[in-house]
Amino acid sequence: MSFREDGAAALDWVASYLEHVREYPVLAQVAPGDVRAALPAAPPETAEPFSALLADLDAVLMPGITHWQSPRYFAYFATTASEPGILAELLIAGLNQIGILWRASPALQELEEVTLDWLRQLFGLPDPLHGQLEEAASMSTLTALAAARAARSDRRVVVCSEHAHSSVDKAARLLELELRKTPADEAYRLRPEQLDLSGACAVVATIGTTGSTSVDPVPAIADACEADGVWLHVDAAYAGSAAVCPELRPLFAGWERADSIVVNPHKWLFVPQGCSVFWTRRPDDVRNAFSLVPEYLRVSEGVASLSEYSQVLGRGFRALKLWAVLRCYGREGLQAILREHVRLAALFEEWVAAEPGWELCAPRPFSLVCFRLEGADDRNEELLGRVNASGEIFVSHTKLDGRFVLRFAVGNARTTEDDVRLAWDVLRREAAQV
Amino acid sequence: MSFREDGAAALDWVASYLEHVREYPVLAQVAPGDVRAALPAAPPETAEPFSALLADLDAVLMPGITHWQSPRYFAYFATTASEPGILAELLIAGLNQIGILWRASPALQELEEVTLDWLRQLFGLPDPLHGQLEEAASMSTLTALAAARAARSDRRVVVCSEHAHSSVDKAARLLELELRKTPADEAYRLRPEQLDLSGACAVVATIGTTGSTSVDPVPAIADACEADGVWLHVDAAYAGSAAVCPELRPLFAGWERADSIVVNPHKWLFVPQGCSVFWTRRPDDVRNAFSLVPEYLRVSEGVASLSEYSQVLGRGFRALKLWAVLRCYGREGLQAILREHVRLAALFEEWVAAEPGWELCAPRPFSLVCFRLEGADDRNEELLGRVNASGEIFVSHTKLDGRFVLRFAVGNARTTEDDVRLAWDVLRREAAQV
Repeated sequence: MSFREDGAAALDWVASYLEHVREYPVLAQVAPGDVRAALPAAPPETAEPFSALLADLDAVLMPGITHWQSPRYFAYFATTASEPGILAELLIAGLNQIGILWRASPALQELEEVTLDWLRQLFGLPDPLHGQLEEAASMSTLTALAAARAARSDRRVVVCSEHAHSSVDKAARLLELELRKTPADEAYRLRPEQLDLSGACAVVATIGTTGSTSVDPVPAIADACEADGVWLHVDAAYAGSAAVCPELRPLFAGWERADSIVVNPHKWLFVPQGCSVFWTRRPDDVRNAFSLVPEYLRVSEGVASLSEYSQVLGRGFRALKLWAVLRCYGREGLQAILREHVRLAALFEEWVAAEPGWELCAPRPFSLVCFRLEGADDRNEELLGRVNASGEIFVSHTKLDGRFVLRFAVGNARTTEDDVRLAWDVLRREAAQV
Repeated sequence: MSFREDGAAALDWVASYLEHVREYPVLAQVAPGDVRAALPAAPPETAEPFSALLADLDAVLMPGITHWQSPRYFAYFATTASEPGILAELLIAGLNQIGILWRASPALQELEEVTLDWLRQLFGLPDPLHGQLEEAASMSTLTALAAARAARSDRRVVVCSEHAHSSVDKAARLLELELRKTPADEAYRLRPEQLDLSGACAVVATIGTTGSTSVDPVPAIADACEADGVWLHVDAAYAGSAAVCPELRPLFAGWERADSIVVNPHKWLFVPQGCSVFWTRRPDDVRNAFSLVPEYLRVSEGVASLSEYSQVLGRGFRALKLWAVLRCYGREGLQAILREHVRLAALFEEWVAAEPGWELCAPRPFSLVCFRLEGADDRNEELLGRVNASGEIFVSHTKLDGRFVLRFAVGNARTTEDDVRLAWDVLRREAAQV
């Protein structure tokens, strides 16, 4: 293959895709098995040109793509692989660094340390804080709870709110820790007066729950954890990026007291998929839980490898994409987009509040609006199905207080007020049909 | 930023890098802290152009890069991010799919299923086999052992050879399973007559150990596992790719009887970092160990999501890079490169065997040669240090039978016979100085 020629075609493909991404049906409009059926059942015997791949990407795969890059994607948490982030992935792949130990890529390890310190500063978190990048929040939270379990080995309970993310459940199951869910209040925040820390090695407090982006009372939880010597892990996987805006920092009160924190720049900080920040004030406990240096990686450099703090040995050069985003946006650029997202969500919230027959279902601290049609759940389920089948926008749901609730998440960097207005039009149009 | 313009610059950067990669010192010639010291201590306040990033990539990061892409990289296991794989990463980032459930990216899930079935066919493995892609072998092996623990919950022992990879130790520690290491024979293969399966929920057999690429006697181990109802996990993270060559299949005898297998296409199948295949004949046991579907991901499509088989919820579009490599090389193309690597390793082995003062230290089933200067360990340590400090080639070490041994791993797709000959020249030149 000609790398320059094929590369130019691939680059053009991505550029055209991003220019036209608003035009695609946001949710893939295929049935299970459609994509599989369109692919050959057997592998190719001989080499095919890269152009054949691009052709099949269009013909076979694109119908099965849900457009996370669309400015009309409002489901789950809306994300963005920004342009600098995308190009950084090209550089990362070209360099193919595998950080199994410091000497295998000094640049990978030291850039990771520096960019995570930059991010710490952008978020107003205190120094020092050991930072490392994991694939996903599931891994960051697993890292935290494994360290907590090792640090307090006589205790086998993890405490969280009933609204904590399922990754906490999954980590507790893998670690064979008992999970104790604490009831939440009317705003879906953990009730600190109901915290029971007996036997607890860790508490997970959430700033920005997945269901409603509610904010647990971290200062009260931190008090209780400190009094009882319990590891406090703060899950700010989605919302954490908002800490770059000083006016939103009050929502993060107390997180600086956490033993560990997870924030996913691949959620709301314009970094492509696969970039979860794990910070800890207790790196020795983390290293103690994970370090294991086999002979073939023993060298006399006197530098601990990041892999000693992590379950995974071979780490990718994720820092390069975070570095690209932080540099190509700068503090001001990041703040501007996040503020716009919060403004757009507030606007949408106002429209819902003002519209007869609709109701808001939760406070809106960040850029997610929880809402529904008044009345029965099945009307809302039908509405959701109709809206997503239209392909014009993509919205998801959750349950709050046992009721089916729609979630409108603003988070794509290309989303404009027109996109939000269109979404509201589509929602009202389809609601008139249910 | 102008995505097309900056993209062209990034593409040119990568193309030039690959054209000149042979010219760089293979092992980064910096001291700990050098890269960090050359980076600003504080994050940028305002946006910088992408060109500034590229300039700093050259000026600040490149001295700290160890060139895994160099054809003169012979350390650990040599790898390659091939051209189609690199361009696939650009496409992956552009699309930014996050496979949290089927509808979030039908193409991601179904392409993953299809490409892993293609790979199964290429390796001559039986149908059906459930396949999924994980970040690293550490995660694939963790997945296997977690499933084994759940499937046989009365037993808490994992058995492996003393030469098994450290990821087995790490997984056992995280899962709080006792690790029982079985002695190896004179060729570094697990001694099946010393297998003790009392209390074992899993055995990890290795085809291609990290130290010497020895091959455990899988058929005998499979017999024992079957007799005792113990989960057999085969770690073929490095060597598995060689199964694409029928003449090497005898080395894989018995792996088709494994309950699970790990093979890393990012090691020896030209896929960029972050592509580990996990296969299992017991998908129900894996799903049982990991499935947990929160309300916000519950939809009525009747399709199990791959995330139900995995610790991580948000999976990337790794299948696209595997697809790109399988198509742009084809079975024949992959076989040709792997056969050449085996030939080059055999050639190097012959040179060592014929040279007075040098010795071979292990059989060579694949493309790794274990060798040393006759005499004391410290001569070999000094030799290794001198060779790597030259920057001309990069070689690593291990210990076998308590002795310091050099490892010469052929695995980069760009490596030629001239590169191997140069390596041997450098080794002999430096050996004359110790």
